[in-house]
Amino acid sequence: MAASMSLTALPGFPRIRPGDDLAALILEGLEAAALRLEAGDVIVVAQKVVSKAEGRLVDLQDVTPSAPAHELAERAEKDPRLVELILLESREVLRVRPGLIIVEHRLGFVCANAGIDHSNVDQAAGERVLLLPEDPDASARRLRDRLEAACGVRPAVLIIDSHGRAWRMGTVGVAIGVAGLPALLDLRGRPDLFGRRLQVTQVGLADEVAAAASLLMGQADEGCPVVHLRGLRYPPHDGSLAELLRPRELDLFR
Amino acid sequence: MAASMSLTALPGFPRIRPGDDLAALILEGLEAAALRLEAGDVIVVAQKVVSKAEGRLVDLQDVTPSAPAHELAERAEKDPRLVELILLESREVLRVRPGLIIVEHRLGFVCANAGIDHSNVDQAAGERVLLLPEDPDASARRLRDRLEAACGVRPAVLIIDSHGRAWRMGTVGVAIGVAGLPALLDLRGRPDLFGRRLQVTQVGLADEVAAAASLLMGQADEGCPVVHLRGLRYPPHDGSLAELLRPRELDLFR
Repeated sequence: MAASMSLTALPGFPRIRPGDDLAALILEGLEAAALRLEAGDVIVVAQKVVSKAEGRLVDLQDVTPSAPAHELAERAEKDPRLVELILLESREVLRVRPGLIIVEHRLGFVCANAGIDHSNVDQAAGERVLLLPEDPDASARRLRDRLEAACGVRPAVLIIDSHGRAWRMGTVGVAIGVAGLPALLDLRGRPDLFGRRLQVTQVGLADEVAAAASLLMGQADEGCPVVHLRGLRYPPHDGSLAELLRPRELDLFR
Repeated sequence: MAASMSLTALPGFPRIRPGDDLAALILEGLEAAALRLEAGDVIVVAQKVVSKAEGRLVDLQDVTPSAPAHELAERAEKDPRLVELILLESREVLRVRPGLIIVEHRLGFVCANAGIDHSNVDQAAGERVLLLPEDPDASARRLRDRLEAACGVRPAVLIIDSHGRAWRMGTVGVAIGVAGLPALLDLRGRPDLFGRRLQVTQVGLADEVAAAASLLMGQADEGCPVVHLRGLRYPPHDGSLAELLRPRELDLFR
C-alpha cells in the first residue's frame, strides 16, 4: 500500500472576532468539508484566528512608547508605538535594519517584529495590531480538548505562523503551539537502509506539518485559516513548542 | 468546495545504483500507486536517489586530504578525507565545531557538511560517501522532460534534501532543485482580507512543498524517496533554486 496523506482547508471560515468560539467554528468547518474527525488526524490553525479569538488586538492609540522604543523606532523606521509592543513581546533584540526588527520572542523563538501583524486586521475601529497568542501550546491543548469532547477522538492540534529564515528567501509555516504530536521526531538509533545508525537524527516534524498546511492556507485574502491533515504517522508523544527551540548555547547563528 | 491536496509516497521503490533510469522508476512507481500524472502535479524526489543515479558516490580511499583539510578535520573531529570533499563542495566555511562543519555550498545554500552523506550508502564496496547532485535544477528539468515525454503532461519536479536551521531544532525538507513551479511565491500587491496591501510578501513555496513531502519520505529505513503531490495551486512560473537563496548582503545571520 502506498503511504499517503491528505490535507483539506476547511471551507467557509468566517472572520473571527474576540470571544468567538474557535473550536465550534472548526467543528462546523469539518462538517462543511464532510470530514469526520479520526484518531491521528491533525488540525492546523493559523495563529491569526487564535489571536483574534483570544482578543490579542491592541489599538496603537492606547500605546505610549518608552524612550528605548523611540530610539529603536528611529533605527528601524517604524511607528514607535508598534516598536513599544515589539519590545514588550520580546526577550532580546537580535538585529535591526529599516523596516525589520528581529527578536527573540518571549515565547522563545526568533522572528521578525515579534510576530505582530497588521495585515488581515480590521482597521475600521482604529489602528489595531494583533499580538501572538499569550500561550500557543495552551491554546492548542484547549482546542484539542474541545474537539475531543465533541468528537470522541483525540486529534493533534498545531498553531502555526509564517517565519522568515536565515540564509533562504521566503517565509515558511512553522509551529508555535503544539498539542498531541511530537514537535521534534527523534530518529536516533533507527537504522538506515543498510542497517547502520542514522546520521541525521532529529526531524522538525511539527514545522514540516506547519509548512504543508501553510500551502493550503495562502497568505493573502484566501481566508483558509484551518487545515485538516489525515494520514501522517507519528509516535504517541505529546510535544510542545519548547522541543523546537534551539538552546542559545547550541545556536551558532545568533 | 474545500481546497485540498494529497500526497502519495510511490511504493516499491528499489535501491538505486549509478546509471539507474530514475524517470523510468518514477513512472513504474506512479503505476504501482495507480496514479496517472496530471498537469499541475508535483513530483518530489529525495536528493539521495538523484545523486546515486548520477553516480555521485566517492570512495574515501581515493581521496588525498590537503593540508587545510587536515587542519579543519582536527577542529571538527572528522575524517580528513571527508573534510577534503566538504571543502571541494563548498565556497566558504561559516562555522565549525566538533562533528559539524557549516558551509556555503557551491550551489549557494548554507548547510551542514556540504550535504555529504554516508547514511543509506552501501558500504560493501568500500567507505563510500554521497555528494549532492552536480546541478539539481538541471536534474529536476531532465526528470520533468522525461516525465512529460512519457505522459504527455508537464508536472513540476523538486529535488529535496533535509537541512538543519538556525534557531530551531530539527531538520526540515528544503528544495535544492526546482523545475516547473515558482520556488518563491511573490504576493506583493495582493490584498489582505480587508483590502490593504500585504506585509508578508514572499513565500518559500518550494521549501514548503519539500517539507510536506519529507513527512512521507521518512528519514530512516523507510525507503520512500519519491512523493507525488496533487492539488497544489501555483502560478505558471518556471522557478529555480536561485530564487530561494538569500543574497549575502541581505542576510543578517551569516
